Order: sequence, then structure tokens, then C-alpha cells
Amino acid sequence: MKKISMAVIGLGCRGKGLHGTLLSMEDVEVVALCDEYQDRVDAAVNDNEIITGKRPFGTTDYRQVLAMPEVDAVLIATAWEPHIPIAIDAMRAGKACCMEVGGAYSLDDCFALVRAQEETHMPFMFLENCCFGKEELLVTSLVRNGLYGEVVHCSGKYGHDRRSQIVHGEENRHYRFRNYFNRNCDNYPTHELGPIAKLLGINRGNRMVSLVSVASKARGLEEFVNSHIDEVNPSLSGKRFMQGDITTTLITCSNGATIQISLDTSLPRMYDRAFTVHGTKGFSMGMPRDLSPSMYLCFDGEERWRSIDEDEFKKYDYWQYVSKEASRSGHGGTDGMELKAFVDCLKNGKEMPIDVYDAAAWMCISCLPETSIAQGGKAQAIPDFTHGEWLRRPLKDVVELPVVNK
Amino acid sequence: MKKISMAVIGLGCRGKGLHGTLLSMEDVEVVALCDEYQDRVDAAVNDNEIITGKRPFGTTDYRQVLAMPEVDAVLIATAWEPHIPIAIDAMRAGKACCMEVGGAYSLDDCFALVRAQEETHMPFMFLENCCFGKEELLVTSLVRNGLYGEVVHCSGKYGHDRRSQIVHGEENRHYRFRNYFNRNCDNYPTHELGPIAKLLGINRGNRMVSLVSVASKARGLEEFVNSHIDEVNPSLSGKRFMQGDITTTLITCSNGATIQISLDTSLPRMYDRAFTVHGTKGFSMGMPRDLSPSMYLCFDGEERWRSIDEDEFKKYDYWQYVSKEASRSGHGGTDGMELKAFVDCLKNGKEMPIDVYDAAAWMCISCLPETSIAQGGKAQAIPDFTHGEWLRRPLKDVVELPVVNK
Repeated sequence: MKKISMAVIGLGCRGKGLHGTLLSMEDVEVVALCDEYQDRVDAAVNDNEIITGKRPFGTTDYRQVLAMPEVDAVLIATAWEPHIPIAIDAMRAGKACCMEVGGAYSLDDCFALVRAQEETHMPFMFLENCCFGKEELLVTSLVRNGLYGEVVHCSGKYGHDRRSQIVHGEENRHYRFRNYFNRNCDNYPTHELGPIAKLLGINRGNRMVSLVSVASKARGLEEFVNSHIDEVNPSLSGKRFMQGDITTTLITCSNGATIQISLDTSLPRMYDRAFTVHGTKGFSMGMPRDLSPSMYLCFDGEERWRSIDEDEFKKYDYWQYVSKEASRSGHGGTDGMELKAFVDCLKNGKEMPIDVYDAAAWMCISCLPETSIAQGGKAQAIPDFTHGEWLRRPLKDVVELPVVNK
Repeated sequence: MKKISMAVIGLGCRGKGLHGTLLSMEDVEVVALCDEYQDRVDAAVNDNEIITGKRPFGTTDYRQVLAMPEVDAVLIATAWEPHIPIAIDAMRAGKACCMEVGGAYSLDDCFALVRAQEETHMPFMFLENCCFGKEELLVTSLVRNGLYGEVVHCSGKYGHDRRSQIVHGEENRHYRFRNYFNRNCDNYPTHELGPIAKLLGINRGNRMVSLVSVASKARGLEEFVNSHIDEVNPSLSGKRFMQGDITTTLITCSNGATIQISLDTSLPRMYDRAFTVHGTKGFSMGMPRDLSPSMYLCFDGEERWRSIDEDEFKKYDYWQYVSKEASRSGHGGTDGMELKAFVDCLKNGKEMPIDVYDAAAWMCISCLPETSIAQGGKAQAIPDFTHGEWLRRPLKDVVELPVVNK
């Protein structure tokens, strides 16, 4: 079996997790590890050696990784800011590339990412693991099988109490702190937007055309600092954060469907992506992670709630084909699924399930809300990154969904 | 006991219901009934006579009602369109006035309503029964008692599958049809907006400053017509409705809090107002009517969901003081509560719990979204109807909420 030789760039919490997932894959060998902090590199190199018996190259300079001829592909899991610059450098160095999610800081960065991929033809995948989520795939399957009629609106959120991580960001070398302290936008749109964009065929027969975005006042982090004043960095006392606690963005698509996404990360709450789909024949509403059932559905003419756990829906479920073993990787198995998809496509020369056009289109829903909020909710144009090819690119889901109703 | 002599103008489904509620009130006598359709007048007059033994005056001309010296107060429950014109005429005729909810068709109508009340000093109440809802009052009580910290964002929706009522509107003489056929806005914002505005102190220390609004494509009603083609008026075949299926409006308040409301009435779904409040110390999420519990809550530092039904919350609940009998009126008792509030204030010369400034501020969140949608989500200024008095008007809830934590 041909093994893919990979490097991991970025070894914070997320990079460490994905490194572990790569090490569990029999057709991957991790040959290089990189982070801007030497201690993280050393720890990851040691972990790698303990697990595999092999000691990968370790460095704090990602350019050294890109210069290694034996590296086939890099996984980028750094802080949000250098995702795109490193991905561009990697593709220009002839490396295939998979890149963790985050938002973009400028439209130009998104265009540059697309251009680098188009010019180098290097395989590129955007690692939005929520696109492989059980509920997201099951609802997409129900839609493809006609149970929702025509989909007219989808909504979702990143509802995750990140206050402690943000406020302790400086001492933990975490990028969230500086983003919440200085910016006001939807800094992390893709967990909810990715699955919705896939469902609505964005870049494949449909596209996002414009958005408006509004942010609430920013009080959650200041209040959190005040009530944890003995535990946090004393320099935070009295400081104001720029990031509004709740950011809501409304997106209009070329086909007339609308999307709502929200960032809700600096107030007390339980985790929730609230993946919700409205069609002319069906409706479903995702519930927070700790409640059961995980989703309620309602179909035309029935006038009752259905649970996603009902037997009737099992035949539409892609996850029936996912092995127990595969479902044991990080984030409910989705980390393993996305990396397997990347490696499979790489080995077989197939189109990536989440490509550079998806990455650019989804990531710009971070800097565009930033401008919209600063301009009092003014509508912003969302560029087409496909040069008009969205008009003829065929619909394609991230996995082959069950075809039940032909 | 002094009885209030009342007239009901508008005897469709809603007016009939409220007429029934008035007849159950011992300090109210209904002396006149009016609707533009004679058959509705005749039926209501007969019903009134059967129940009370007295036959009120009936007419299709509301001006005849306003000319009756014995009428103390009128209840307006007509189609949405003439609410404000009739209310203005009523106040100018020296009648106290309570007016059913709906949206406004122009800002000027809202200003004219306020002016009429200010010039005549006639008591005026806006009948938003959801302001008296159990969950709405309980959450407001929790907020007033400090459990949410500072409230930064609230959201709600009018999620109600109205397709059949809309599509059969012409033959049923119902106003929804012509509104959905011709307009694209949030045509019915106050069920969710009213309780949120009260909670956030709108017109009392806070005000709504601007909004943006976006509508999805309109497909639900056309699809409903197509799939019920044998039951509906044949003239509807192939017709397009202007009203987008999901309309979302984001409102920014002067104190930096934000509000999201949605109209979701022309697709299959179960009833839901989704009354949701985000504070720096607490969060709650209203559930659809047919699910239990009706609300989940989550408080800072607890990291678990709480149910609104837990004993701990009972002491904050205004509804513990509402009699079984009172809770039997329409819409879970809220119809009786709002009319009792109106009559009590009228008899005792007290300030109305939902006044003309509330009516104007809430009703304009219908024509302003209409403009915003037509202008591609352009931000619209929301006027101050209080002439700046919102800066010093004291916070006041629709009922006296329990004071638990001083």
C-alpha cells in the first residue's frame, strides 16, 4: 500500500488532535511536525515516536517542512491568521494541502488562495468536519431524497461557551483572545455554514450573493473577567472586548434561498449548532448537543413532531455505513472521516469533497460580516470565486448519500 | 359595580373570540357590535343575546358605533389594514380604545396613532396577548430578579403554519390572503417582539434604533396551492405570492442589545414562538408549543440544561397568582388577562400596560422590514415615537412581577 507522507503544521490543541487521528490511519505516515513554539514540536515528535516507533522531523519553521521532497501533503492547523498564507506557500511548494477551518481576514486572501490552487493544481481540501456530522448528512440525505420539497431557508449557529478559552488565551498562546479583543465579526462561521452551503449547492448551481450582519454589544467577556478576577491575567481588568456577544448574519443566495448563521461564544450556554432546514414539504430543527432527540422534524400534512431517531429515517442515514472504529475518532468520528476523505481523494486523484472554492466562499463570511457590522448592517456583496463555473458545476455531496427514493 | 360599556368592531374569528371573553367579564357590558359583513353582525348580536339576555346594537358602519354616547370603549379586531384608522377615529370620538395586533402599513400611520392619543388623552391599549404569556412573564421575572445578568440579545419568531388560512383567505374574507399575495415584509411581528420589547425596556430607558430585514424566496404557498389544487379557488393556479416564506429582521437597540424576529408562516411546521434570551449570566431557549419542557435554561457556571418546570423557578412565576378561572380564557388565558388589564386601568385611571408608544414602535417593524427587504437588506432607521421621553420613562412591566431577590 502506498502511504501518503504528511506533515502537520500547527500543534496546538487542534493540531495535536488531528496528528493523533493521522497516526491511526494505516495509509498515512507523518514525516514532519511544525509549530511556532519549540515545546509543542518536541512534545509532538516524542508522541509520534512513542506511537509509531519513528521520529519525524520537527521544526519551528514551516518553510523547512515545505522544502522536504518526501512530504506529499501538509495539514495546516495553526492559529487562524496564517492558515491561508501557509496554504498558499504549501501549494506553491508542490504540496497537497488540507487546511483547518476559520474565517478569512480579507477578501484578497480568499482570492489568493483560489489563485494558488488554480495555478499549481495542487489538491486542496478544507477540513470542515461538521460537513460529515451524522445529523447534517442525514438531513442532506432526506433533502436529496425529496422529503423537504424545495429548501428555502437554513439556519445554524456556533453556540459554544468559549469564555474561559478566550480570556485565558494570552497565557495559553491561543489565537481566540486577540481576535475577540480586537475584532467584531463572525470569526468562526464554517461549522454551521459549511453543511448548509453543501446542502444548498453553493458553488454548484447556487451561490451566496449578499449578506447583512449585526452584532450585539460585547459584555460577556468583560463580565467573565470581573467575576473571575483572581484567576485571570490582571492586565485584563477593566479591559473592553470588541467582539459582540451575539453576531447574526443573513445571507441571500442566487436561487432565492436564505441562510442565517450566528456566533454565540462569549455568554453562558450549552453547545448547539442548531442546524435547521425549512422546505416546502419538510422542516427540521437541530437541538443542542446534550438534549435528546438531537433533531425534531415535521413533514407536510402530518402536524406532529418526528424524532430523528425513528426507524423510518435509518435508511437515509449515511452513518449506517461508517464503521464503529471510524466513528471513534475526534468530534464524534468526523475528524477521521474528513482526513480519510482527503487521503482517499489524494491517492485516487479524485476531486476533493470540500474544495478551494468552498473554502474561499465560506471563509469570507468572516471579513464581510466585519465590514457589514462596522457599517451598521450594510449589505455586502459576496464574490463568486468560481469565475461563473458555479452555473455548470454539478451538485456533489461530501459523501455518496443513500438513494432511497428515485 | 360600575360596568364599562364596550363595543366590538371587527367580528371575524378573532373578534368573535374576544367578544366571548368580554361577555365573561362581570364589569363589562357589550352594547354595540360592528363588522363590515352583516351576517357576522347578526350572528354576534344573536350570540350576545343568548348569553346575556341583552341585544346589543349591531351595524356595518363603525362610525355609528363611535356616535353612541353610551359606548365607553371600543375593541378593534378588524382586518389588519383599518386598525389604526379606526383607532384614531375612536379616540377622536372620545372613546377609550383597545386594539388587536398586526403590523403597520406606513410610518405615518404610526405617528398619526400616537398624535391622536396625545391630543385626545383617550386611554389606549395594544392587545398583545403574548406579553401575558406564562413563559414570557416568567423569564422577564427571572431577568428582573437578576438571574440573567445583563441581557444582550433576544430572539423570537412567529412560527405558525398559516398556509390553509392564507390560501383560502378570499372565500373566507380573511385579510391574510391579500397581504401575502401583494407584500413582502414581516406582516405580523408583535407576538414575539412585544414580550422582548417589554423585557428590554423599549420606550422606557431603551429604544429600537435600526433594523435590517431579509426574506427568503416565496415558494410555500404556491406549492401548497399546487398540491391542493382541487380544494382551492381555481384562480390561484399558477399565481405567485410576493411574501417570502421566512423573513428575518435584526434590530439594534440604543443600549447595544440586539433583537432577532422571524416570520415563518407559509411552510410546514409546528407552532413556535422560540422566545430566547441571552444574558451575561443566564440563557433560555423557548421550545415549540407541543414539546416539553416549554423552555430550557442554562446559568453561568452550571454547565447543564435546566427545565422551566423545576420547582426552583415557581417563586418567580407571576402565573401562580392567576386564578384557574382566569387561565381558561382564549390563548391559554392571555386573552382574559389582557382585557382585564385594559378594563382595570380604564376604571382606575391607570396607565395602560401596553400603550400607544409600544403600539407604534412595534407595529412599524412591519413597514420598515418591507422597505429593507425591497432595498436588499438596507438598514432602516426606527423612529422614536416618545419625543425623547424614553430617556426618562421608568421601566414598567405589564404586570407586577414577583420580587424574589432584592
